[in-house]
Amino acid sequence: MRSNSFPIVDALQYSNWSETVFCQMNEGGVAAVHVTICYHEDFREMVENIIAWNRLFEAYPDLIIPGRSGDDVRRAHAEGSTAIFFGFQNCSPIEDDIGLVEVCRQLGACFMQLSYNNQSLLATGCYESEDPGITRMGRQVIREMNRVGLVVDMSHSAERSTLEAIEISERPIAITHANPHAWHPALRNKSDTVLKALAESGGMLGFSIYPHHLKDGSACTLDEFCAMVARTAEVMGVGQIGFGSDLCQNQPDSVVAWMRNGTWTRDTDYGEGTISAPGFPDQPSWFCDNRDFPRIIDGLRRVGFTGDDVARIAGGNWLDFFDRSFPGSGAP
Amino acid sequence: MRSNSFPIVDALQYSNWSETVFCQMNEGGVAAVHVTICYHEDFREMVENIIAWNRLFEAYPDLIIPGRSGDDVRRAHAEGSTAIFFGFQNCSPIEDDIGLVEVCRQLGACFMQLSYNNQSLLATGCYESEDPGITRMGRQVIREMNRVGLVVDMSHSAERSTLEAIEISERPIAITHANPHAWHPALRNKSDTVLKALAESGGMLGFSIYPHHLKDGSACTLDEFCAMVARTAEVMGVGQIGFGSDLCQNQPDSVVAWMRNGTWTRDTDYGEGTISAPGFPDQPSWFCDNRDFPRIIDGLRRVGFTGDDVARIAGGNWLDFFDRSFPGSGAP
Repeated sequence: MRSNSFPIVDALQYSNWSETVFCQMNEGGVAAVHVTICYHEDFREMVENIIAWNRLFEAYPDLIIPGRSGDDVRRAHAEGSTAIFFGFQNCSPIEDDIGLVEVCRQLGACFMQLSYNNQSLLATGCYESEDPGITRMGRQVIREMNRVGLVVDMSHSAERSTLEAIEISERPIAITHANPHAWHPALRNKSDTVLKALAESGGMLGFSIYPHHLKDGSACTLDEFCAMVARTAEVMGVGQIGFGSDLCQNQPDSVVAWMRNGTWTRDTDYGEGTISAPGFPDQPSWFCDNRDFPRIIDGLRRVGFTGDDVARIAGGNWLDFFDRSFPGSGAP
Repeated sequence: MRSNSFPIVDALQYSNWSETVFCQMNEGGVAAVHVTICYHEDFREMVENIIAWNRLFEAYPDLIIPGRSGDDVRRAHAEGSTAIFFGFQNCSPIEDDIGLVEVCRQLGACFMQLSYNNQSLLATGCYESEDPGITRMGRQVIREMNRVGLVVDMSHSAERSTLEAIEISERPIAITHANPHAWHPALRNKSDTVLKALAESGGMLGFSIYPHHLKDGSACTLDEFCAMVARTAEVMGVGQIGFGSDLCQNQPDSVVAWMRNGTWTRDTDYGEGTISAPGFPDQPSWFCDNRDFPRIIDGLRRVGFTGDDVARIAGGNWLDFFDRSFPGSGAP
């Protein structure tokens, strides 16, 4: 049993997984993490990532368990372990085959972004100059994702595509890791129009702590971050927000270069970085790894959230969302 | 609820699946069928076959349900539907990647043959002239199959490989579809040495009704077949035998040519057929489709099996084997 009475949930991490990272999750009281198992991988390559996770589950059964439903979060919280939920940051694992949506769900995928930064077969990414909205295949895939219980995630998608996904999806969608554009106008952050539509449809926003998504970047203070959370609660309601730290711990800079460039370009795309600063930015001093979540929770209390609200933001809202999105064991 | 009080289980079919075939399963009182979803397919191709089955489960929810455990057989029997258990007739879906064993299990595979007719990466097929036994990778894969609950099936494997698989496997294995070699000396039928070792280890034999495995082929009579079952019960015990009809209903002859030749030869291999009779043989008159199982059950009564023994042979033994092999939901 953890010292924190409520479960902490982080809706996005892509760390260089290790026993050390899992122990830090445990120490930080983190009961569930949505981990990325695809950026650019096709189906077969993504399956190799599942195999790697299967080996981790086998090696560290006391630290991590496969996450398929809200009950797994409650079990992990009670046992002092962390439930690992799989997600894709791109739709590449389903290739051009709608039948793979259900197969990916059967293999434990819980979230899928309809696009990463570029145009995909389904939707437009936030780095494209034009956003024609959800494609013909995109509409079919959203319906199939709704049917099998795979959550639509629009974290990296462009404005119109995101608004259309919210409207087309019959289940609430998620923006697992982004912040309000009004606070920090990064391409990856979201307009109030998107945030309001997301909240009204029962969807969830996970606040990113990736420096490029923060006002003042790595120098952003904890109090500024928590004040932003408070303002977003006024826009979206306190029931529709949580964490989505985008923590990429212990990754070499080659990984962020691969995230941005995959195999789609012969040039070098620096994404949110620059030619002079192409690597991962430094984490803000108040969030270096999973052990710092209690520090953020203290910050939320300081900006005036009640104890109940803090518990909802720290994990309760995501847990409700998981219960609504992944009924039962999650297995078809 | 079915008219037959006990569930009928058939441990091998590869028909041209259709509503008609599923209705015939229902009419025949068949509560579970082990269906082949791979002969020569690699992992990705096998996944397409799972997708095709997902569509069938969606289209005919009153006729078929996914089979993962003995409870699914009992549920199907109570509801009057048929639980469909997936199996591979070859190890090609795991390619050369031991991690795919668990992934295939996660996707619902319940049985895997270590080889089809030829040498595989794991074991030797019954058509090879030399049988060096279980390979280095084969030993590793058997251990992994034991760990994740994927049943070793040696129906098409050669003698030494089969005996070694029985010995190496820590869980009972199956020969899902074959008959005693002493009754009909086909390459695919099994020696008494194999049958005794199989029974002593708690394994199961499913009796084939594929004409090339029957004495007198398509002309084999029901009484001859049932007398063979009775003699095998004396060799193996009445608790280790069941059905494994190898029914390939409504398949064009191109399918049996593909089973035999896959992509491994530039010649034409006729397998159990001949150049003058290369296609599927005619079924014996007493077993054309699933509606004929009650006729076989009557035949078993006629050769002197008690009502309890008939119920065990018709399904109870396989159900016990499923309960031992696939505890819980089968999902890891």
